[in-house]
Amino acid sequence: MASGWFYLSCLLLGSLGSMCILFTIYWMQYWRGGFAWNGSIYMFNWHPVLMVAGMVVFYGGASLVYRLPQSWVGPRLPWKLLHAALHLIAFILTVVGLVAVFTFHNHGRIANLYSLHSWLGITAVFLFACQWCLGFAVFLLPWASMWLRSLLKPIHVFFGAAILSLSIASVISGINEKLFFSLKNTTRPYNSLPSEAVFANSTGMLVVAFGLLVLYILLASSWKRPEPGILTDRQLLLQLRPGSRPFPVTYVPVTGRQPYESW
Amino acid sequence: MASGWFYLSCLLLGSLGSMCILFTIYWMQYWRGGFAWNGSIYMFNWHPVLMVAGMVVFYGGASLVYRLPQSWVGPRLPWKLLHAALHLIAFILTVVGLVAVFTFHNHGRIANLYSLHSWLGITAVFLFACQWCLGFAVFLLPWASMWLRSLLKPIHVFFGAAILSLSIASVISGINEKLFFSLKNTTRPYNSLPSEAVFANSTGMLVVAFGLLVLYILLASSWKRPEPGILTDRQLLLQLRPGSRPFPVTYVPVTGRQPYESW
Repeated sequence: MASGWFYLSCLLLGSLGSMCILFTIYWMQYWRGGFAWNGSIYMFNWHPVLMVAGMVVFYGGASLVYRLPQSWVGPRLPWKLLHAALHLIAFILTVVGLVAVFTFHNHGRIANLYSLHSWLGITAVFLFACQWCLGFAVFLLPWASMWLRSLLKPIHVFFGAAILSLSIASVISGINEKLFFSLKNTTRPYNSLPSEAVFANSTGMLVVAFGLLVLYILLASSWKRPEPGILTDRQLLLQLRPGSRPFPVTYVPVTGRQPYESW
Repeated sequence: MASGWFYLSCLLLGSLGSMCILFTIYWMQYWRGGFAWNGSIYMFNWHPVLMVAGMVVFYGGASLVYRLPQSWVGPRLPWKLLHAALHLIAFILTVVGLVAVFTFHNHGRIANLYSLHSWLGITAVFLFACQWCLGFAVFLLPWASMWLRSLLKPIHVFFGAAILSLSIASVISGINEKLFFSLKNTTRPYNSLPSEAVFANSTGMLVVAFGLLVLYILLASSWKRPEPGILTDRQLLLQLRPGSRPFPVTYVPVTGRQPYESW
């Protein structure tokens, strides 16, 4: 039952994430003239799409790798590699998104990094870079001791959620700012709520819904990988599948646990 | 030691919260002409101050009542009343902050609720109202069963953190929007980063730091009220103080726990 809710949440998450990206593409294509890579305003249009895709959707999805029950049995290394690789894709999308806006600004002699949106956004990207490098050095390379890993794990998890929260705040302020820029001096300004404004505002609300769902799945205690040596009902079900290898751990029934019971 | 870190975090939180409110007041007083209650732009100036005070600082402080070790022993009712009363103060400040902006808009025939900032902000306030009413009905009034309370507690805790996240995203987009409005058509526009912009951007970053610290204290598992029947070292210390009443529970040493061990 708990697994059913988990996969239903993942399905909802996938739908919301796809809608966030597709809605942002549609906004830029239909109302803002589409895309180019030539320093023009059409190059800027890559910025919202790539930041939503990188810092929110791919980042959020990559954060949830260890919530998949399949990752709870067998060696951890493949899941760590998947976690790192998905975050690397998210980071590359983010960097290309930053290149798009900096190139557009420099081409049009517009100042960089003056708005609160940009201050918060660049802070989130900087923390993301630190988080990825620290995670790679401590949790993937073999030199770090178990003591260091267990010391840094809660910090890694907290900053993972914190960076996503900063990204969402940054995306919201970015959409708001873009609509004020684009819809000034038009026959139907932002405050008359033209269809573009309704559509882009709704995209922002979808991004918020996606982010909150990621944080819910990330923090719900019954969807977390159990501590080593304790086997939950779901792991047992996975082990009982034909062809799966036995795994020597103690079985403790924990199906009655509620999400957040340990908050 | 863990208690020392907790109280140090509370001291930092108090300082950050006070700075958030004082910086917003200073911004409105020094650069935006101060305050009035007459439908003018000076009436609008109450809006950022009251929203930062209500939806962020008082809300954040009120959320952390159960993290005080003093709340872990003895009856829960006084702490529940304090939690509800502080949130009610936060809600009243918020409502007065909304009255300020709606009155200013209506007085100047400016449209209400068109920007993404306002959509997100009004959603946060609506969820806050639902959260307070549901919390009052289920956790303070005596009719709800333990089953219903334990079912709704994780939802109450999750939405508590989610509403704070939405409020912070809303405050960031609000400061950003206000600066674009106030600094257009001036000799030193926003993109030239005049001193007002640096000050207000920094206020926004302080709000983000405050919000992240609240979420850290709220979610760190070693700072949570232990489950009933388990007495931690800190509770034992509180009980051993002269004049304190004995409390019949089992003692389990848990000082070695790390924050987020159960994430």
